[in-house]
Amino acid sequence: MLAKIQAALAAIPYPSQPEGLYEPIQYVLSMGGKRLRPTLVLLAYSLFKSDWEKAMPAAIGLETYHNHTLLHDDLMDHADMRRGMLTVHKKWDDNTAVLSGDTMLLLAAQMIASAHIGRQDEVNALFLKSAIEICEGQQYDVNFETRSDVTEAEYIEMIRLKTSVLLGCAAKMGALLADAPAEDCEVLYRFAEKVGLAFQLQDDYLDCFGDPKVFGKKIGGDILCGKKTFMVHAALQRMTAEEAQDFLALLNTPLEQIEADEKIARALEVYRRLDIPSVVEARINAFYDEARKELNALSVPSETIWTYATSLLKRKS
Amino acid sequence: MLAKIQAALAAIPYPSQPEGLYEPIQYVLSMGGKRLRPTLVLLAYSLFKSDWEKAMPAAIGLETYHNHTLLHDDLMDHADMRRGMLTVHKKWDDNTAVLSGDTMLLLAAQMIASAHIGRQDEVNALFLKSAIEICEGQQYDVNFETRSDVTEAEYIEMIRLKTSVLLGCAAKMGALLADAPAEDCEVLYRFAEKVGLAFQLQDDYLDCFGDPKVFGKKIGGDILCGKKTFMVHAALQRMTAEEAQDFLALLNTPLEQIEADEKIARALEVYRRLDIPSVVEARINAFYDEARKELNALSVPSETIWTYATSLLKRKS
Repeated sequence: MLAKIQAALAAIPYPSQPEGLYEPIQYVLSMGGKRLRPTLVLLAYSLFKSDWEKAMPAAIGLETYHNHTLLHDDLMDHADMRRGMLTVHKKWDDNTAVLSGDTMLLLAAQMIASAHIGRQDEVNALFLKSAIEICEGQQYDVNFETRSDVTEAEYIEMIRLKTSVLLGCAAKMGALLADAPAEDCEVLYRFAEKVGLAFQLQDDYLDCFGDPKVFGKKIGGDILCGKKTFMVHAALQRMTAEEAQDFLALLNTPLEQIEADEKIARALEVYRRLDIPSVVEARINAFYDEARKELNALSVPSETIWTYATSLLKRKS
Repeated sequence: MLAKIQAALAAIPYPSQPEGLYEPIQYVLSMGGKRLRPTLVLLAYSLFKSDWEKAMPAAIGLETYHNHTLLHDDLMDHADMRRGMLTVHKKWDDNTAVLSGDTMLLLAAQMIASAHIGRQDEVNALFLKSAIEICEGQQYDVNFETRSDVTEAEYIEMIRLKTSVLLGCAAKMGALLADAPAEDCEVLYRFAEKVGLAFQLQDDYLDCFGDPKVFGKKIGGDILCGKKTFMVHAALQRMTAEEAQDFLALLNTPLEQIEADEKIARALEVYRRLDIPSVVEARINAFYDEARKELNALSVPSETIWTYATSLLKRKS
């Protein structure tokens, strides 16, 4: 399935003109990635019908949309690299990132609307609703960076909007395209949303407590750049005001003023002292269990999509 | 009709959260403007059916889309002001302009898809196709700024994509929503596209040769900032290589090195010597005539929409 997704993405016919508009789009889509969202579309579809290749236009449309968000997010974050390659605003410029990103969003909507199977109207509406929620999530993320009183519930609502609704959208989209019963569509949405929450928390967790040998990146990247992850907010909620001030000062210390290893070690010590790893593990497992329970309500066998979700959630990198 | 459009735009219910996402959107839409595109949607609809208020969601969706393009264009052009108000990236910041602009595009698509009358599927497809063409037009515009060999035909194709297709889209959208005969929908598209071309060339013309008393802005703004308008390309095509070099040097002279009035006077002298005003007037009149001819093929009376187009094309400001 993944091979077919890659092939379909590579086969999207882009115009060659105007120069500078479509090249960055192809570039971003060639960077690779897990292709999680199109896989979920196709897996959800194939729970109900075997001709899953019919859902491919929508699947690669959703992947194109996801890469549009990465393109604009990297621009807003001033990120230089993604997956070992220069980001679009670095390889080209800011304006190219804005305009190619806008074009990518429109192409995505066009592809998603082009499957012409199942309940296409509901698919289109689901996509737009989800994409608006993702903008809201991104805005909350921005707002939270300058707040130190974000609750765990607020943080989880933010990552739900920013990342999980797109997984929910992917799974429900596959089901809608297969004309699945309405209740199954909702079940798959809630299932993938929970998987997404577990997945995102695991990202935060692995960055601090992953096994350096299998994690792939250096441990502590989030700490070094002072990113306000779930770990940070969970820790802040378990501190006195004074401790919180010290901890935030540590996270905000630029690397000119502290050794990277020391910054990481001191933050990890705080997390361990407050038992944050257990807090996060418990949260991840709870979402994992909720996801599993959702699937029990499905009217069709769900092994394939559960196996896929498990492989994501058992990852160490 | 305009009053109802303004009222509908002001009544769009935006969520209050997250802070900083929807405020800039309301701000941009409150700046005013001719509301040309929603008016065309409603006028085209009302050629076929009298209950034009049913097309209002799509009409204000298209205006929201248009304002999304202004928001992102102002960001890319580093423009500080629009209609006497600070642009979004100036009043807030660049990231706000990117994210609120993206949200606006999605809200626009949602509103356009929400009319649920006439041939809604074709409306959605028309919108996405047009919006992609507008991105292409914007990219051509960027590319042309650094070229001195742009032909008149290339320039006109650029403004067709950048501005006229949205007028074509507006008129055709109204007709589709009214479930008008397919040929009428196409006629209205081509009609409004021609009106758009005449309108855009008139913009370039008035900026140089408008009556200062009625134009509203200072004459010569495009010359001062060295913008590559139709006038510039038409002039370059009628010059020797040496003259072209001098003319481009004049246009690119920063205002620290030349008096504004002198820069304008010298450019206008070039235009007059080459008879550029007549060239542009002939082009405008040709598009105007073509627009008129298109309407003759319409299966219903078209006075209302022609009167509106004429009022736009006879404008002096």
